Amino acid sequence: MIKKIAHIGIAVQSMSEGLSFFHGVLGLKVSESITREDMGLNITLLRLGEVEIELLEATRPDTPVAKFVSKHGPGIHHVAVEVDDLRGTMADLEQRGFQLIDKTPRTGAHGRLIAFVHPCSAGGVLLELEESPPTE
Amino acid sequence: MIKKIAHIGIAVQSMSEGLSFFHGVLGLKVSESITREDMGLNITLLRLGEVEIELLEATRPDTPVAKFVSKHGPGIHHVAVEVDDLRGTMADLEQRGFQLIDKTPRTGAHGRLIAFVHPCSAGGVLLELEESPPTE
Repeated sequence: MIKKIAHIGIAVQSMSEGLSFFHGVLGLKVSESITREDMGLNITLLRLGEVEIELLEATRPDTPVAKFVSKHGPGIHHVAVEVDDLRGTMADLEQRGFQLIDKTPRTGAHGRLIAFVHPCSAGGVLLELEESPPTE
Repeated sequence: MIKKIAHIGIAVQSMSEGLSFFHGVLGLKVSESITREDMGLNITLLRLGEVEIELLEATRPDTPVAKFVSKHGPGIHHVAVEVDDLRGTMADLEQRGFQLIDKTPRTGAHGRLIAFVHPCSAGGVLLELEESPPTE
């Protein structure tokens, strides 16, 4: 049911700092930069093989990413995996007693349907389930 | 210089608990299970597309993974990227003022040359550089 790692979400203190390492030093290519004011996030995606690195910069302090950075400092925030059938995967996990943060799918930053699994149900990992794009 | 994500290292409280989620629930296939007494680690690799999930269980309390779990709980411990030329990459990073945990390459759990970059130099991420296998 899980196809691949879609992206690794990394919370940064500042986007320019994050980019100076992942783009400037490691040489990863930027594939997309967006601002989602509704989510309070600036997001930059960098391609690394079949995976993307998703840099997340909070634009205001009342967001999960701002709270994460304030508590833990910058670092790995979540891992997103691509699934064929998001609703089916969610139903399966719920039936097995796993705790989902999102009870119903919602539209993520990149326009795809997503849902988060609670870290307490995923070995401490904040796990994002992302539905495969329909064209694939 | 960076080719792809090699693996995502996840510190688990117990291997059976970690496997029950990543193998039992998500259905990822186990590609390798090893014990490295010298490192105080039980390691299980699960394949997910071109990336591997590396579950890390400490076998004794005086290890970095045991200390990580005791401080943060289980969760994502590090990200490993594959590089063509490990020594060249390390020299380049050092020259730019980045802090390496390993000053010289060492042999990692899977027999490849590795070195860790300090999180303070990599956006809060504990970054493992892993040399590509010679056959690739």
